[in-house]
Amino acid sequence: MTDRTRAWPRMTQASGPVDVSPDTLRAMQRPVLYHYDPAFLQLFERVVSLLRDVFQTRHDVVIMQGEAVLALEAAAASLVRPGTTVLNLVSGVFGDGYAGWIRKYGGEVVEVRVPYNEAIDPESVKMALDAHPEISMLSVVHCETPSGTMNPVGEICRIARDRGVITVVDTVSGLGVEAYSPEAWGIDIAVAGPQKCLGGVPGLSLVAVSPAAWAAMECVENPLRGSYLSLLDWKSSWIEQRRFPYTPSVSDIFALEATLEQAVCEGIDRMAARHQWVAAAARAAIAALGLTLWPARSEIAAPGCTAVAIPGGTSADEIVHAMRNRYGVMVSGGYGELAGQVVRLGHMGPTAHPTALFAQLGVFERALLDLGVAIQTGAGVGAAVERLAGWNDAAAG
Amino acid sequence: MTDRTRAWPRMTQASGPVDVSPDTLRAMQRPVLYHYDPAFLQLFERVVSLLRDVFQTRHDVVIMQGEAVLALEAAAASLVRPGTTVLNLVSGVFGDGYAGWIRKYGGEVVEVRVPYNEAIDPESVKMALDAHPEISMLSVVHCETPSGTMNPVGEICRIARDRGVITVVDTVSGLGVEAYSPEAWGIDIAVAGPQKCLGGVPGLSLVAVSPAAWAAMECVENPLRGSYLSLLDWKSSWIEQRRFPYTPSVSDIFALEATLEQAVCEGIDRMAARHQWVAAAARAAIAALGLTLWPARSEIAAPGCTAVAIPGGTSADEIVHAMRNRYGVMVSGGYGELAGQVVRLGHMGPTAHPTALFAQLGVFERALLDLGVAIQTGAGVGAAVERLAGWNDAAAG
Amino acid sequence: MTDRTRAWPRMTQASGPVDVSPDTLRAMQRPVLYHYDPAFLQLFERVVSLLRDVFQTRHDVVIMQGEAVLALEAAAASLVRPGTTVLNLVSGVFGDGYAGWIRKYGGEVVEVRVPYNEAIDPESVKMALDAHPEISMLSVVHCETPSGTMNPVGEICRIARDRGVITVVDTVSGLGVEAYSPEAWGIDIAVAGPQKCLGGVPGLSLVAVSPAAWAAMECVENPLRGSYLSLLDWKSSWIEQRRFPYTPSVSDIFALEATLEQAVCEGIDRMAARHQWVAAAARAAIAALGLTLWPARSEIAAPGCTAVAIPGGTSADEIVHAMRNRYGVMVSGGYGELAGQVVRLGHMGPTAHPTALFAQLGVFERALLDLGVAIQTGAGVGAAVERLAGWNDAAAG
Amino acid sequence: MTDRTRAWPRMTQASGPVDVSPDTLRAMQRPVLYHYDPAFLQLFERVVSLLRDVFQTRHDVVIMQGEAVLALEAAAASLVRPGTTVLNLVSGVFGDGYAGWIRKYGGEVVEVRVPYNEAIDPESVKMALDAHPEISMLSVVHCETPSGTMNPVGEICRIARDRGVITVVDTVSGLGVEAYSPEAWGIDIAVAGPQKCLGGVPGLSLVAVSPAAWAAMECVENPLRGSYLSLLDWKSSWIEQRRFPYTPSVSDIFALEATLEQAVCEGIDRMAARHQWVAAAARAAIAALGLTLWPARSEIAAPGCTAVAIPGGTSADEIVHAMRNRYGVMVSGGYGELAGQVVRLGHMGPTAHPTALFAQLGVFERALLDLGVAIQTGAGVGAAVERLAGWNDAAAG
Repeated sequence: MTDRTRAWPRMTQASGPVDVSPDTLRAMQRPVLYHYDPAFLQLFERVVSLLRDVFQTRHDVVIMQGEAVLALEAAAASLVRPGTTVLNLVSGVFGDGYAGWIRKYGGEVVEVRVPYNEAIDPESVKMALDAHPEISMLSVVHCETPSGTMNPVGEICRIARDRGVITVVDTVSGLGVEAYSPEAWGIDIAVAGPQKCLGGVPGLSLVAVSPAAWAAMECVENPLRGSYLSLLDWKSSWIEQRRFPYTPSVSDIFALEATLEQAVCEGIDRMAARHQWVAAAARAAIAALGLTLWPARSEIAAPGCTAVAIPGGTSADEIVHAMRNRYGVMVSGGYGELAGQVVRLGHMGPTAHPTALFAQLGVFERALLDLGVAIQTGAGVGAAVERLAGWNDAAAG
Repeated sequence: MTDRTRAWPRMTQASGPVDVSPDTLRAMQRPVLYHYDPAFLQLFERVVSLLRDVFQTRHDVVIMQGEAVLALEAAAASLVRPGTTVLNLVSGVFGDGYAGWIRKYGGEVVEVRVPYNEAIDPESVKMALDAHPEISMLSVVHCETPSGTMNPVGEICRIARDRGVITVVDTVSGLGVEAYSPEAWGIDIAVAGPQKCLGGVPGLSLVAVSPAAWAAMECVENPLRGSYLSLLDWKSSWIEQRRFPYTPSVSDIFALEATLEQAVCEGIDRMAARHQWVAAAARAAIAALGLTLWPARSEIAAPGCTAVAIPGGTSADEIVHAMRNRYGVMVSGGYGELAGQVVRLGHMGPTAHPTALFAQLGVFERALLDLGVAIQTGAGVGAAVERLAGWNDAAAG
Repeated sequence: MTDRTRAWPRMTQASGPVDVSPDTLRAMQRPVLYHYDPAFLQLFERVVSLLRDVFQTRHDVVIMQGEAVLALEAAAASLVRPGTTVLNLVSGVFGDGYAGWIRKYGGEVVEVRVPYNEAIDPESVKMALDAHPEISMLSVVHCETPSGTMNPVGEICRIARDRGVITVVDTVSGLGVEAYSPEAWGIDIAVAGPQKCLGGVPGLSLVAVSPAAWAAMECVENPLRGSYLSLLDWKSSWIEQRRFPYTPSVSDIFALEATLEQAVCEGIDRMAARHQWVAAAARAAIAALGLTLWPARSEIAAPGCTAVAIPGGTSADEIVHAMRNRYGVMVSGGYGELAGQVVRLGHMGPTAHPTALFAQLGVFERALLDLGVAIQTGAGVGAAVERLAGWNDAAAG
Repeated sequence: MTDRTRAWPRMTQASGPVDVSPDTLRAMQRPVLYHYDPAFLQLFERVVSLLRDVFQTRHDVVIMQGEAVLALEAAAASLVRPGTTVLNLVSGVFGDGYAGWIRKYGGEVVEVRVPYNEAIDPESVKMALDAHPEISMLSVVHCETPSGTMNPVGEICRIARDRGVITVVDTVSGLGVEAYSPEAWGIDIAVAGPQKCLGGVPGLSLVAVSPAAWAAMECVENPLRGSYLSLLDWKSSWIEQRRFPYTPSVSDIFALEATLEQAVCEGIDRMAARHQWVAAAARAAIAALGLTLWPARSEIAAPGCTAVAIPGGTSADEIVHAMRNRYGVMVSGGYGELAGQVVRLGHMGPTAHPTALFAQLGVFERALLDLGVAIQTGAGVGAAVERLAGWNDAAAG
């Protein structure tokens, strides 16, 4: 048992990171470059350009050298000062957590909160903004990966923009599952990560920053500069001078180039459609197995990750361990307040594909049987096979 | 369509080569060495030692620097001379083909032949040997990959050995699906390849040579030396002097080391059990889908590759193309005389695993539906899920 | 010209990152793991253990997920509060810069400063500490890579420790060039990076933290928690609960494991000796070419990077570009206030080796000739060849 | 000592294989494909097309799946029959060896022979052909790597072609050091390998076949078909039907694609010039060190490999071992009849570059000093630095 536990999994279909493509892995094999090598400067420039294509934006983009929580905190650290009032929308663990940074940097929190299997209603945002005209910033999570839910970020942010409120969106696992641009949706700071639906390697924050957001950062008291948390440092170094504030993670940048190239090559629309198709098939499987989706309604389910309520007689831990240790498939259990309540079947990046889904569902069925959960064998995979009729016409293979 | 055709598949589950493990791929990333570098000499020695472990033999082993047909021809070229009579057993395309080499090197062929969905009956071997006392060599294929069938090589070769007949076995896709040793089975020359059930990279022949076989090669008129086809060259160079007859394929040797290490680490018994479990599950799926196995009986089906008769209303080409082009799974159609008659679902090496099987079967079902074949969706994968009850106790994850 | 500029260099022998070993590159080829996969948890544990071996410490170690400036700022952010007085030692660009973080987090700076081609005199530290009994923290840079100089950190920190002053050492390019332990030298927070003399990949901070440093962080007003800059988060998550504060940079951790394994395998003493041998040979070459070392004395020259004053008639930029664009060798020019004044020949990690040194010096000679600098051809490499007599006895090949 | 011996070298600058480029190594990281996968068929087609570009030919090309001796023997096996008279030109070990295959396949050998430090005089070829009008085939080695010499193949083959004699040229280490086309030089069968001056991975034969050669193969008695040694098999399978005679070495083909792409990208003229520049600099170094070039004259020295006579007081083995074991540089000693007489400094493929040359020469000097050979330190590298003046104008960096 020890040996099998220690071994690498066959497939990583968790809530991110997930399996990355061979091309992305290969990209990290390129010799490490000195960051001021002309080849690296050109490559970094190209990566920035690809990132704008993937964000479908003409805003500036910044690649912060740390996992997305770095940029999420950086946004708060750059925009929030004592006296700032922020409307923080909470539909899950990450939304809830953002209040901590707002308070840490001295801000006041106004909260709109829904149960963790629900999504934020744009009407409630309107009401909160009307009730609190002092609100100057709004923070919201696009996809709440811990709950497998998705908020209507476009509607929400357009409401805020119309009122001159700066919007900060955690779209870490949202970029790639809906085709949007920050401009169209009214997002001032969009924070994504390569290791979720883009199918890349963790270690970087991908940020799109609107002119209004830059202006707001520069207008606060004591603008944040000279810090690992500073977005403005990247503006004054890379964007304005083609210098780096410090040594970037060279190999991760190589991987990011490959990840973004693949996204551009596939097309963001097609990538989003692919995630939506596979997620719909996963939900069909869950229903056919007689299990319960965690999100209250199918329409608010996240396309990157299907959260399933734990069936009676077993536990999240048992399911995760059985799938991983007996059959080599790594999925995620619950996180934060949802620990023990859900198991999450990831289908992000390269794993948002029928092959990975069938493998995952087959192993899920087998593991449930092993654990004594009564299911009709093959019903889950069968429903997914059924639901994917027409796949080829809608999405890239 | 062009673009999708051009793209790499998601999974290669054909009749070999198949997907190799990440560790094997990584091994080829090691810097190329000069073949007389001390590091390479040590490594080659280690590979030879690992190969003996995998063959479970104390016989000499030779790694010829070309795909297995090189060693199969080399065996004929080394042993057959005008006047040599060879009993050639034919239960499929490769068995049939071996007669060509026997004749090319001047030998007489005595043939025992069965239909290509059948296996050789050891009794018929006995009868042929009794009828032809002039026979000095026997050639047989362990697994006929084109037909997805398997011959009882152990029984056959022991019969031959008892009569002093030299046996040459094409176990190219047989090594790893049954746990055997050449000594126990009476095999004088066993020829395998890394790219089938060991899950390695094509380009090398793995050969185990008994003392009797060496003696026979040295006794023929004009023993074969000074040729790419010569086994004796490897004896007089590597085995006796730690020299190479010519530059070996350095990177392929790196890959082979990794492949063999993984085999030894898993254990040949467990590897064989793993293939047998997955093949049984594949056959259960075929039956549940109402399709017909190509081999006449389940007992003679090869554990590395399940050959399925083409259902009415479609064709092998259509199935292969639909699976590959729409869903990214590469399987094999028929080969040689079986072209158009079967589709072959490979489960060799790393693809002999429930995850790969479920993915393959789900895509197979989806493709059949696309092509208008009436199947009960989910029945195939469901039967495989069912059949794999107990997997963890019998085989490594 | 454009094409050549765009091309990858043959060798990266700059001030870090430098060329990494093939084994380190290959490690990043391993499939990305979910961070709570049992395989990743085991691997992370192993990396932490290897890091303690490399630091030769029994202190806790923390791997922060960003380049070393993250941990350097984190140390200030964790320890400095309004009212804290810090003795900041300045012998170069990085020492000078540290004052910025001290002030940013509210501290008072007492400074001991020497010219940028000099090293800090421990006596001056003693005097400053005596004159300012309110000092509770000291910050110093081990190797000032921009100047190619090295401070006597062991002597300095032991003086501070005797007075109960917490010491923070930037040993980013110092780990691996002298064999030391934080305990023996009296270092409370040692911050290193994989991408300098360990020869690894940039993107992580390697930190050794003494019990006294932990206590100090916990005693300040409003201890830093819940932030990307927090060291305490790592204590309460990984060290105490085997949880991560956020997703770590999985592939960079793979690379770090390989980097640390190589260091442990070589031995830190031998690694340090190797850097010292190669640096001595580089200095011999500079002298033989009639050029001027930037550091005032050979004894204070850094073993990882030889800074050379720019000879008359040319410029740092011209030398760097000629070496890079014509001969494919990337070295560094000056940085910060030393821009234009020096060229820096890096010999860190795998490039701290005679082969890399000879290549670099040959190209340096050729480039100087191309730029019209009068040198005696071969004198530099010849002196290095001479100086390396006995190499094999002292250092690993 | 054992540990160091076992370790990988830093640089492989032997007589081939040599260090390959990172891009070539990375190419082998691509997932293994089934050989009839549409992606592989397209890729193979592309490789064939690139190979014609590298050979600068419109002749058919064949990629045989084994190191170049396979194709060299295949040429003899395909063309030579009892009664065939072949003019075999011998200026070194490989030329001498070719007679073995001619005789093995039943031919008569007419020989022109020169000492192994000399080159064949085209006049002697003319005389031999005039004296033996029965000669229908000529065999010659382009670069005799064991001797570090080069024959005037263009002049020789044009003489043969004018007389209707089929020419077979071993240009294994010649492709890439002179820019030629088989058509221009009159070569009917040119056999090269990826692992020499193209800087690729060993394991394949690269063959260009003229229409006259195809015709000759088809006209002999019992044309060679159905064999690993058959060139005609490739004609009737790949060239005429896009089928493979057997499973090709998939990963080696990936590497070959990368190798050929790099060659085409650099340009064959520039690649040849690069080798010639570096070889000239190597010879200048040897002269400056007071050592003796093995080839009788500089004009006949091979551009890929400089053979140096062993100086008194030491031995080839001692030099090779000192360079390898103490300094990590692998070069070659003598081979065949030249064993013990020469040491060979390889500068092929990526190692045909100033950086690699300076590293190699510095280590060569250091090793000679270690062995007590009196040389002027730095004289060798200095002469090479001198000789490379103008490098940038003539050759790619």
